[in-house]
Amino acid sequence: MIRKTRLFTPGPTPLLPAAQFAMAAADIHHRTAEFRALYQRVLDQLKLFVGTKNDVLLLSSSGTGAMEAAVSNLTSPGDRVLVLSAGKFGERWTALGKAFGCEVDVVSAPYGHTFSLEEVRKALKIETRAIFMQATETSTGVRHCVPAIADLIKSANSNALLVVDAITGLGTTHFDMDGWGVDVLIGGSQKAVMIPPGLAYLAVSDKAWEAMEISLNPRYYFDLRKERKNAHKGESAYTPAVALIAGLGAALDYIAQQGGGDLAAGRAALVENAETCAEMTRAAIAAMGLKLYAPDAPAAAVTAVLSPEGIDSGVFVKELKSRFAAVITNGQGEMKGKIFRIAHLGFFDYMDTISLIGALEHIAVSVLKLPGFQFGQALTAAQKVFAQRDPQAAAKRECQCGREVSHCARKTAAVTA
Amino acid sequence: MIRKTRLFTPGPTPLLPAAQFAMAAADIHHRTAEFRALYQRVLDQLKLFVGTKNDVLLLSSSGTGAMEAAVSNLTSPGDRVLVLSAGKFGERWTALGKAFGCEVDVVSAPYGHTFSLEEVRKALKIETRAIFMQATETSTGVRHCVPAIADLIKSANSNALLVVDAITGLGTTHFDMDGWGVDVLIGGSQKAVMIPPGLAYLAVSDKAWEAMEISLNPRYYFDLRKERKNAHKGESAYTPAVALIAGLGAALDYIAQQGGGDLAAGRAALVENAETCAEMTRAAIAAMGLKLYAPDAPAAAVTAVLSPEGIDSGVFVKELKSRFAAVITNGQGEMKGKIFRIAHLGFFDYMDTISLIGALEHIAVSVLKLPGFQFGQALTAAQKVFAQRDPQAAAKRECQCGREVSHCARKTAAVTA
Repeated sequence: MIRKTRLFTPGPTPLLPAAQFAMAAADIHHRTAEFRALYQRVLDQLKLFVGTKNDVLLLSSSGTGAMEAAVSNLTSPGDRVLVLSAGKFGERWTALGKAFGCEVDVVSAPYGHTFSLEEVRKALKIETRAIFMQATETSTGVRHCVPAIADLIKSANSNALLVVDAITGLGTTHFDMDGWGVDVLIGGSQKAVMIPPGLAYLAVSDKAWEAMEISLNPRYYFDLRKERKNAHKGESAYTPAVALIAGLGAALDYIAQQGGGDLAAGRAALVENAETCAEMTRAAIAAMGLKLYAPDAPAAAVTAVLSPEGIDSGVFVKELKSRFAAVITNGQGEMKGKIFRIAHLGFFDYMDTISLIGALEHIAVSVLKLPGFQFGQALTAAQKVFAQRDPQAAAKRECQCGREVSHCARKTAAVTA
Repeated sequence: MIRKTRLFTPGPTPLLPAAQFAMAAADIHHRTAEFRALYQRVLDQLKLFVGTKNDVLLLSSSGTGAMEAAVSNLTSPGDRVLVLSAGKFGERWTALGKAFGCEVDVVSAPYGHTFSLEEVRKALKIETRAIFMQATETSTGVRHCVPAIADLIKSANSNALLVVDAITGLGTTHFDMDGWGVDVLIGGSQKAVMIPPGLAYLAVSDKAWEAMEISLNPRYYFDLRKERKNAHKGESAYTPAVALIAGLGAALDYIAQQGGGDLAAGRAALVENAETCAEMTRAAIAAMGLKLYAPDAPAAAVTAVLSPEGIDSGVFVKELKSRFAAVITNGQGEMKGKIFRIAHLGFFDYMDTISLIGALEHIAVSVLKLPGFQFGQALTAAQKVFAQRDPQAAAKRECQCGREVSHCARKTAAVTA
């Protein structure tokens, strides 16, 4: 049987054809007027996509490079920083803080959960220089409430910078960087913006730019001040990943089209799209009698599913790959073998979602012969969600911060198994 | 919601990415050693794909060009020919025969059916120069039994040439051109070989080559003798569609891979793939309470479905396109508004088939609110077919010719609504 390779992974995500064509055509030298016009246009588009008045910078690196840039540009050795950690990417902030000589306080949440706001309040010291967090924790499929942390910093009269890794969050959950008071917001290319890995971007507030002037940590390739100086001339500081930048421009054009020509509306449509795919998937998982790994605060970017008792989650990964060429991901670290993860961020549609659920049911019913599972249950549940979904009702659910989720994340109803 | 354009049309069919890449890279002049090597390789691959010892020629034209070539090269004005017609493409043979001055006898079957072998026997005259037929009639989704007609010519001691339009038949139903005694077999590029329109190919028997020498109809661009002479030098007579030829080579490589490196096995795998997708779809249609347009001899290439009473079939076409960007086809001619057609030929897999059925159910249940329809019924039926399908059992059903279908078409069980 023919099997078409299909990525259902939370980065890299499926590629937008228009972006692929733009990449193939990108035979441009990076110190020319032609490139400067492209680069300036993409930086302007990124500002609209992020939804900020702040400068947005592009780095030719993975998202981790941008995370390092945030740490190395904003801290000095011996600085006290607070990491909010609930998975592998939270732990990466801790490792980065330590690598750059910071005293790292950590508020941890168990995998599959978000942290307690009360614990964050207690851990925030007067000398805390920065808080580092994720918007969504890709390794567990959890959404954190960014504005709740921003509010907490304000109410404590803290001077801490708020740095948010929104690599899987941008385009899957609502953001209001300027309104909330986020200082650095980080995105990556192989996520909701539908192009391959290799680019990261950062939106940086005035407060963060000021902080950089007194920070003593060493940085060169990731020196954001130098990058900004060059960006104002329409150039990158070092040789940029030209084809990826051309692809990003085409992808942002597509996202704008989805919003009737407006990038902010396009981003909102992208969030709504991910939420729809995620809600269909959560309903399917519940209908199969499987459990969500993060039932309380599920991200729209990726759904993490607990493998049934006695079955290594790698079996689902392997069977979907070998039988259907559909690629999902296992858990990472100690979650490996326990969960599998299905992505919804970026270029996914109804038909992708239905087909993955159909394949998953085939594995459960026909390959693993899990007791009590029947064909069509999960598919029917997903179809009903698609047909009856009411985004407004979904947005009225309560967020971690006590407000309706529409205020902070336009999050949709969690379907608890 | 994001909508990815997906073709479920019986030509053009979804493109193979490897063929797209080969087309993009095909910057070759057609009178060079480089092109001759490519062309010779593709012609050799086509012989293996068709499964014949005869020469196979490529034309830069649509399939209709190759149909014209068969008529203009094999007949003279005033020749008596017999057309077996059961749809729009059968009617095209009649139009071509008349355009080239032939006396055209026609055995017609009602749309949705195959013709009566007894009627063909009666219509075959001693002076009949050629029989023209389809292997599968794309407009109605019917499979005809080619070997039954070949046998009939033999048993009548007729000297008629047998010309088969296998444009949607090749790669969706079994062929044994040499064993059966087919004189001209015609294929097209935008079908099971997974590349865009623009190429047609013909396998031509020795008997047909001899007949060409005495045929008096005018031909120039489609003069097959000239084309063969050039093909033996590794060239085409006129400027060929170079990129399509490069794409065809890559597609035939892929089909060979599907057969473990062997093109004949790859073709068989392709037939089995189409049969699986078709059987899943027929089961889904039956589960929805809809009727097949060709329940007795359904082709694996395409499934034609009768629209429910009072609903124009164009509604299904339009709703699938506007809501999901999935493209199916309406009926042609007088079948327009009455049937819709879903293709399975070429680059389709389980996930494509499941997703289209899911989308179709959405239209039926949620948009048209057809009474008695429920989510999941069609999907479950398709899942069961995929899980339980037994190709051997399916092949034991009786063909039109009275033999097990495995002998003549490896046809699978029809699911009657």
